[in-house]
Amino acid sequence: MSKQLNFGAGPCILPQEVFEEASKAVLNFNGLSILEISHRSPDFVAVMDEAIALVKKSLNVPEGYAVMFLQGGASLGFLISAMNMARKHKKAAYIDTGVWSAKAIKEAVNAGLEVDIIASSKADGYKSIPNIDTIDGDYDFVHYTSNNTIYGTQFKKAIDSKIPVVCDMSSDIFSKEINVADFDIIYAGAQKNLGPAGATLYIVKESILGQSSIPMPSYLNLKTHFEKDSMFNTPPVFSIYTSMLNLRYLLKTGGVAAIEKVNQAKADLLYTEIDANPLFMGNVNIKDRSNMNVTFVLTHEELTDEFNAAWKKANIVGLKGHRSAGGFRASMYNALPLSSVEVLVQTMKEFTAEHISKINKK
Amino acid sequence: MSKQLNFGAGPCILPQEVFEEASKAVLNFNGLSILEISHRSPDFVAVMDEAIALVKKSLNVPEGYAVMFLQGGASLGFLISAMNMARKHKKAAYIDTGVWSAKAIKEAVNAGLEVDIIASSKADGYKSIPNIDTIDGDYDFVHYTSNNTIYGTQFKKAIDSKIPVVCDMSSDIFSKEINVADFDIIYAGAQKNLGPAGATLYIVKESILGQSSIPMPSYLNLKTHFEKDSMFNTPPVFSIYTSMLNLRYLLKTGGVAAIEKVNQAKADLLYTEIDANPLFMGNVNIKDRSNMNVTFVLTHEELTDEFNAAWKKANIVGLKGHRSAGGFRASMYNALPLSSVEVLVQTMKEFTAEHISKINKK
Repeated sequence: MSKQLNFGAGPCILPQEVFEEASKAVLNFNGLSILEISHRSPDFVAVMDEAIALVKKSLNVPEGYAVMFLQGGASLGFLISAMNMARKHKKAAYIDTGVWSAKAIKEAVNAGLEVDIIASSKADGYKSIPNIDTIDGDYDFVHYTSNNTIYGTQFKKAIDSKIPVVCDMSSDIFSKEINVADFDIIYAGAQKNLGPAGATLYIVKESILGQSSIPMPSYLNLKTHFEKDSMFNTPPVFSIYTSMLNLRYLLKTGGVAAIEKVNQAKADLLYTEIDANPLFMGNVNIKDRSNMNVTFVLTHEELTDEFNAAWKKANIVGLKGHRSAGGFRASMYNALPLSSVEVLVQTMKEFTAEHISKINKK
Repeated sequence: MSKQLNFGAGPCILPQEVFEEASKAVLNFNGLSILEISHRSPDFVAVMDEAIALVKKSLNVPEGYAVMFLQGGASLGFLISAMNMARKHKKAAYIDTGVWSAKAIKEAVNAGLEVDIIASSKADGYKSIPNIDTIDGDYDFVHYTSNNTIYGTQFKKAIDSKIPVVCDMSSDIFSKEINVADFDIIYAGAQKNLGPAGATLYIVKESILGQSSIPMPSYLNLKTHFEKDSMFNTPPVFSIYTSMLNLRYLLKTGGVAAIEKVNQAKADLLYTEIDANPLFMGNVNIKDRSNMNVTFVLTHEELTDEFNAAWKKANIVGLKGHRSAGGFRASMYNALPLSSVEVLVQTMKEFTAEHISKINKK
């Protein structure tokens, strides 16, 4: 069976070269399996150090920022970020762009903070990114979700804020250039553009560490992990190793600047087809469209079974929309090649050529 | 280079067959890499279901108990277990058998609980397991660490208690038969006898879920994970897959009862040599010796360099004692074959034959 074209929303495709090297390391990494080495061994300490250095290099992380690997995904990150940023106001501003924002808000409240939703696109079913002026006020911080996998919306630039900014970048970190200095905490589950599920990345302004106004259990305190170089407890060795391989690949192939261009080309190709093809329609506000998760529907819903059969025949997997949004979703993370998008676009063209005449006759 | 004999304390050796199958799945698992499949895909849901079923089968988990996979290791488990067991007393009894117990106590305090240390082996440098009568009193629960990797001590049977029992079994779960019904919460980092680092196992009496007397953020609430069948958020797919492979192997080779006999044979072989060999001495109380982590020292410390050279020459790795205990530590988890222990014992015998005459002349 030839390799499937994986448009899944995550965990998701990584480069084939990374899969191959990770597979070898499971059998032999300097004489042992990567799965059985001690996290305190010089071999793994070197992996962790390189992974952190490659994150810093890829994103031009400035002096005064720390990179850490934890566990628990963004779902624990919602709580950790809020707890670590709690200050004298014990009050935070959240931007609501859908399910992931709502979960983040819930955990800020669970951490004992008061939350003001200062902007929301709930009214239009999260089909847009709200317009936001410069953020200010008696808040400890403002939080937003940079890319919304379910709806297919994305912030095209960082928000403008006079208060500290916390951002969940789980689904678009490493896909485009960012200015890390705009943020106090960036956090991201690894399982999109970084590596396999199991690790969670934090990029944190060092000066915020240890400043929380609420009690902090050890694991939830970012200062704990900073002081122990991400080795407070046994880290997810294999996930970090594979993330390191993926970052090596990213830098070897031109880094974030280069992949951003490729990602833009993939998005342009698919959105152009969606807009030109009479049988398809994009789901969201054009200016807020995500380059990572392209959501669209059939203009004639009764063709759903036929279209499902068409993309499956083209060896495509993972195109089904999220259960709460319906329709289709093409997730196009870094490792998805342009050629896979070309196959999808060609499939859409052929599908329309086959069905358009029948529809026009109705 | 022939495969090294891995006596490391963890992450640690797993069966070669598991490494081989896991390695293949990184390249191809039903047409995709195991690293890129969705955790919501039927293929992975089947993996999770099987992993949970195999845990239940291996340990004869009775009706009314749930098995869950989370993240964060025992270090987050210290907090999660205390928070989930907090009741009207907001007070817990802890047994102190060393570093891991101390860390658990710290997180119970961080969770807002009052802690009584009802028994401790601190006075003898944690070289024993304290004598404990039946536990009772105005406590929400009692907590202990079943096996102490650093010192090499182990509870030989479950404690006797009239109050709920919580146990950190990170380093000896699946190594011997247990009666799950003795416990309200068992938790364990995966990276010893279960699988690679990155997953954390919880076995929980269902009736304790949702009964906590303190506020519970979503991720820290075991009820959250129970209700979502360990899929509240993206689980560490590869770690759970590999754990499932390892559990399949365990059951295929006779299950926990069979491996317990092998583990006893390995321990008997090595402890017998330690006790018979005039150049070596065990670290801890004989009756409290761990079958997982065998700690010992040279009776003539000046031979340290020579002994280090001897075991390294025998292709052994991971025999150095924990930095806080010194000496040597042979960790003999399930996947370490008896033949590796035989090599170690032979190395000790030959070492002594070479050096004993020189020492006797001094």
